[in-house]
Amino acid sequence: MDIFFATSNKNKFAEALEVIRGEAIGAVSIKQFPFSHNEIRSDSLEDVAREAVECAHSQCRGPVFVEDSGLFINALNGFPGTYSGWVQKKVGNRGILKLLYGEKDRSAYFEACIAYHDGKKISAFHGRCEGSIAEREEGTSGFGYDPIFIPAGHSLTFAQSIGLKNKISHRYLALLEFSKSNVLRHKD
Amino acid sequence: MDIFFATSNKNKFAEALEVIRGEAIGAVSIKQFPFSHNEIRSDSLEDVAREAVECAHSQCRGPVFVEDSGLFINALNGFPGTYSGWVQKKVGNRGILKLLYGEKDRSAYFEACIAYHDGKKISAFHGRCEGSIAEREEGTSGFGYDPIFIPAGHSLTFAQSIGLKNKISHRYLALLEFSKSNVLRHKD
Repeated sequence: MDIFFATSNKNKFAEALEVIRGEAIGAVSIKQFPFSHNEIRSDSLEDVAREAVECAHSQCRGPVFVEDSGLFINALNGFPGTYSGWVQKKVGNRGILKLLYGEKDRSAYFEACIAYHDGKKISAFHGRCEGSIAEREEGTSGFGYDPIFIPAGHSLTFAQSIGLKNKISHRYLALLEFSKSNVLRHKD
Repeated sequence: MDIFFATSNKNKFAEALEVIRGEAIGAVSIKQFPFSHNEIRSDSLEDVAREAVECAHSQCRGPVFVEDSGLFINALNGFPGTYSGWVQKKVGNRGILKLLYGEKDRSAYFEACIAYHDGKKISAFHGRCEGSIAEREEGTSGFGYDPIFIPAGHSLTFAQSIGLKNKISHRYLALLEFSKSNVLRHKD
């Protein structure tokens, strides 16, 4: 079975390919569908992903999935959440550290949602990685919020431990759930 | 001529009614069209307003306008901009003050855009109010960012001088431009 991953991000595509090839049963072939989409405004990753995959499916006309993710900081009511990419461009990690200045609760989580459209219905798969916001930026690997996110049970940021990130990240967990799901099994 | 103002905000509607009645030539009657819409993601107020009025027009089927506005802070690359309402809910004025802690450049502006759909084409009207972000919240009138916005040439925040706000605000200026425009003149 051929399925499309609708994304303009080559790194995301490579990561998905690796996880799904390793986990899925049967002959699933993942192809990149270059896709740029003006996402809806919603605090729900799943709502954003479901709307995006509807649009992607109307364009590629085959089984297709999209992935959306965000950083949710508890002391900031879930900010930057589904707007994480935009907030990173505007105020950066320095802005997040300023917003948390003096806050005792630095807990946060990364969440990812994959929405898959099989031509008839949409299924959603989630991955979440709990952690906290560091006191300062540390590390040079990864991208975005990786230098300020410390996963629970660890002392280094994602940007300091990219090998660990790739084994426990929200995106990895969502891809794993998707690749192990029934939607990729028992098909031609 | 009857035209609709598509908004769920009664205060915005009352303000528009007052300005347009005072300025427009001819018999223009403004009616509220209750409207709740999931806006597009864009850094351009005009793009957001144009898309929203397309949607409003498809629902009300008559001449209709929408108004969108935001606070743009120069040291924060225009943050919170078109996401001002959402950012206010998430981090509030306290968050904005934290983000500007230690910044020398506290300049900012409020901008409003009205998009009007006459059944054939869309016209856009803008209003802008330059100013700066206060060192702390002051005043109890108004709403949103009013307690931290000091208009240029003044020393009090909008929330301390609501009478002044109503004469110089971005929304007032956009409404004025709209009401004086040809689109509301020479019609039945």
